[in-house]
Amino acid sequence: MEVQVMQDILGKNDRIAAENQALFADKKIFALNLMGSPGSGKTSLLEKTMAALKDELKMAVIEGDLFTSKDADRIAKYDVPVIQINTSGGCHLDAPMVQKVLREMDLEALDLLIIENVGNLVCPAEFNVGEDEKGVVLSITEGDDKPMKYPLIFKESAVTVLNKVDILPYTNFDMASAREDILTLHPAARVIETSCTTGQGMEEWFDWLRDKVKAKKG
Amino acid sequence: MEVQVMQDILGKNDRIAAENQALFADKKIFALNLMGSPGSGKTSLLEKTMAALKDELKMAVIEGDLFTSKDADRIAKYDVPVIQINTSGGCHLDAPMVQKVLREMDLEALDLLIIENVGNLVCPAEFNVGEDEKGVVLSITEGDDKPMKYPLIFKESAVTVLNKVDILPYTNFDMASAREDILTLHPAARVIETSCTTGQGMEEWFDWLRDKVKAKKG
Repeated sequence: MEVQVMQDILGKNDRIAAENQALFADKKIFALNLMGSPGSGKTSLLEKTMAALKDELKMAVIEGDLFTSKDADRIAKYDVPVIQINTSGGCHLDAPMVQKVLREMDLEALDLLIIENVGNLVCPAEFNVGEDEKGVVLSITEGDDKPMKYPLIFKESAVTVLNKVDILPYTNFDMASAREDILTLHPAARVIETSCTTGQGMEEWFDWLRDKVKAKKG
Repeated sequence: MEVQVMQDILGKNDRIAAENQALFADKKIFALNLMGSPGSGKTSLLEKTMAALKDELKMAVIEGDLFTSKDADRIAKYDVPVIQINTSGGCHLDAPMVQKVLREMDLEALDLLIIENVGNLVCPAEFNVGEDEKGVVLSITEGDDKPMKYPLIFKESAVTVLNKVDILPYTNFDMASAREDILTLHPAARVIETSCTTGQGMEEWFDWLRDKVKAKKG
């Protein structure tokens, strides 16, 4: 019975995800489902992205959080439309939650929608929300063993952002080993090393987004 | 129907957790359910604990992991009994998983059992496994906003270990604010600042464990 209910939940999720995806296709919006552990730097990366690209791309952000609006408040400062989803303790976003807020958003002429998932390296990877691509942010302070310990999220992600590389000298993180494991899990993945503090890798990240938006516009 | 099934799952979990707790009471074992994000340093903290206390306390470790035995392999080097639970992608340990491995363990004369949960700041907090206390490890690299963003795990934890304080100068972590938030969520919580690299705070952590073991022995 538990298994049957889980199948029902995933089946319903996938149906709604397909509806969200059709909407993004119709509006030619590139939608990124951005995932990662608590504190990996997802919101900081988005702040840098909003600051750099807001005059170039029409962007919007959906912020998933358990209870607070701390992250949405940070994004709102950049005058980019942001909508908060509070999961009331739920450990991931799902397609129905995203569909509900999409109805409140102005999607006309939007280029890029970034959906920041709940901070969690496990559960979000199991639920499509209708995105074009998934991405994961891993702080190098989390350790180079994380791709193989949490393989699904790296398998699912077209891009892995290895963040906080400014702190690299103070850790024992093995970059070559992490890159090898990520590419074993997802051979076509793009791996980008970034620091939101020094700005390292930001242009590479922006270019990845620009290319995806351009491809979606066709 | 989904709600009913979740109630059934939690009800069953609590029944088995009570059985585990009765076993720990009978054997006078202090059982700690240790939680935290991926890469917060749970296993490193346990390595230091095993190295320092293995001649003083009779200890055992249960390691929860999605797929690999990487963490269990690290603990096994200290000649402390360690049993691996692979959740096959599941995002938390539950009481039945723990009960199953307890049957394979020699619990006689054991003083301290540490159950390292899956790396996740959300789901593990919702499932008792029969522990005497819960504890959470938060790396200061995760940011000082995490207690209020992930409140349940801090509310549930009798001890919060603020780890990797050696990296504090390279971050903007506000220690006073983090401590205030943790104590707002759990006024009686013990908050310990540690670094597994420099050894800072280790004696305070060991003393917390010693006191708990002593109290359980009665």
